[in-house]
Amino acid sequence: METRNKIRIGVIGGASPDPKYRQIAYDVGEGIAKKGAILVCGGLSGIMEAAARGAKNAGGITVGILPGTSPEDANTYIDFPIATGLGYTRNSLVAMNADVLIAVDGQFGTLTEIAYGNIYGKKVVGIGTWDIQGVVAAETAEEAVDLALKDYFPLIS
Amino acid sequence: METRNKIRIGVIGGASPDPKYRQIAYDVGEGIAKKGAILVCGGLSGIMEAAARGAKNAGGITVGILPGTSPEDANTYIDFPIATGLGYTRNSLVAMNADVLIAVDGQFGTLTEIAYGNIYGKKVVGIGTWDIQGVVAAETAEEAVDLALKDYFPLIS
Amino acid sequence: METRNKIRIGVIGGASPDPKYRQIAYDVGEGIAKKGAILVCGGLSGIMEAAARGAKNAGGITVGILPGTSPEDANTYIDFPIATGLGYTRNSLVAMNADVLIAVDGQFGTLTEIAYGNIYGKKVVGIGTWDIQGVVAAETAEEAVDLALKDYFPLIS
Amino acid sequence: METRNKIRIGVIGGASPDPKYRQIAYDVGEGIAKKGAILVCGGLSGIMEAAARGAKNAGGITVGILPGTSPEDANTYIDFPIATGLGYTRNSLVAMNADVLIAVDGQFGTLTEIAYGNIYGKKVVGIGTWDIQGVVAAETAEEAVDLALKDYFPLIS
Repeated sequence: METRNKIRIGVIGGASPDPKYRQIAYDVGEGIAKKGAILVCGGLSGIMEAAARGAKNAGGITVGILPGTSPEDANTYIDFPIATGLGYTRNSLVAMNADVLIAVDGQFGTLTEIAYGNIYGKKVVGIGTWDIQGVVAAETAEEAVDLALKDYFPLIS
Repeated sequence: METRNKIRIGVIGGASPDPKYRQIAYDVGEGIAKKGAILVCGGLSGIMEAAARGAKNAGGITVGILPGTSPEDANTYIDFPIATGLGYTRNSLVAMNADVLIAVDGQFGTLTEIAYGNIYGKKVVGIGTWDIQGVVAAETAEEAVDLALKDYFPLIS
Repeated sequence: METRNKIRIGVIGGASPDPKYRQIAYDVGEGIAKKGAILVCGGLSGIMEAAARGAKNAGGITVGILPGTSPEDANTYIDFPIATGLGYTRNSLVAMNADVLIAVDGQFGTLTEIAYGNIYGKKVVGIGTWDIQGVVAAETAEEAVDLALKDYFPLIS
Repeated sequence: METRNKIRIGVIGGASPDPKYRQIAYDVGEGIAKKGAILVCGGLSGIMEAAARGAKNAGGITVGILPGTSPEDANTYIDFPIATGLGYTRNSLVAMNADVLIAVDGQFGTLTEIAYGNIYGKKVVGIGTWDIQGVVAAETAEEAVDLALKDYFPLIS
């Protein structure tokens, strides 16, 4: 297993999205896996679970950075659950452990991750999320994955 | 010293504001102290230092929650420096330790604190800062302090 | 209030000590306050509460660094409750925020604080606690406070 | 890749061990991989690197939970570097993310991990490390791995 040099893409978003964004998150996860990147997320339900399910169905690898102290809290599509016991404070670590982030929908938790992504110098792509400085808007899952990866593989776009 | 039941107001903002916002932060800190509230901030320079200086000049009490491991990192107007060693991740703790927040100017670090304030159910008042959902806009330092405190002392406004 | 240059002494120990150690912790807290130092502790019950009660009864100042997200979790003798939301991981911050530590009784939580105290280069004095390298043993509360402070006020002992 | 149900064994120890313990750590890592368990460690040099190297040479999977903010800090034998930005405070997370721990040599950092392992209810096996309550002593790498795993595979021993 050669994983160390793979690009890690963080997918951020809330636990209770509407079904439309759940499907987009699934497609984003699938796209990430097809590109050979590793999916990093918060490990719980909603957008996090949909993206991880998409990535696993496409044969990808998933890492979930959890708020609680128990790795068992992770959704069933997480290969590597990382417990932190930090509560919402763990959001900083989700951003820290991705090379680039894709935000899908989301409320204030997602906003912390968008902001930390910018603090840590990571590009943040967004679909249906906060329309603010520091977010590169995408319309579709495919566009989001392409935007996320084009700094790494310039020929993609 | 009776401090336990005092209201704690967090002042959030960046280390390199322009002079205009530094003055506003000073006035906010002074206003907080005059109302008998405790000032909580990130303990470093810029908005944090200006607000703490204002609070101290008005006889107030100041708490600084620091990113580094050394209490000595705090600016000279902090009475109680709290080292965390968490880096930017400590921003969550600034929001956690205030009853209400006032954002002055600020970039992405301030945005994490605005978002955490909302996650933790705190009102966030803002002057010259992110114009987004979850921020109650104020025009002046006096208005900001009044908006911050009016849930606690309804007759103020 | 001039607090910034006061020595900060951490008192560490468990939530369920036997009554003997509760009395010793009280005496340690009282001794700390009488010397003009600030008491730092974990802010909860048992040794932490007894020491804070001793310090307050002698007119001292107390800081409690809490595992939970709510400052209200602190015992009633804490002047400055600091919420962290870090759970047991906050033990590192207790050690970080003291110039010197006094361990009274205690189990594995106390052991993390003894170890972190040594990592951060702080002297750790102990009464009825782990008998290991990195702990300077004391027999009485008075001796513990004297040992804790003698690097700061060499003439005390 | 089925990783979710694998046992995770934490190997803890310092960055500057003597050569004897480096070899033992290598053998422990190798033994962990041969049993099909995942190695979790602090991701840096010394015992952490030796154990990870042993695990990789035997075809295992390695996770490194790092003190800094950059995944690149991990030694070259770490498959999944997890940055925390917590400094020494991350030691709690190493213990949190293992089902059982093996301490090899080590100073106060290792002591925090031994203590956190006990707080989190994990068995801690030790070779040439702190001789205290809460550590099950082993003489050899093989014995340490067997002791670590025998609660999971009772027939091993």
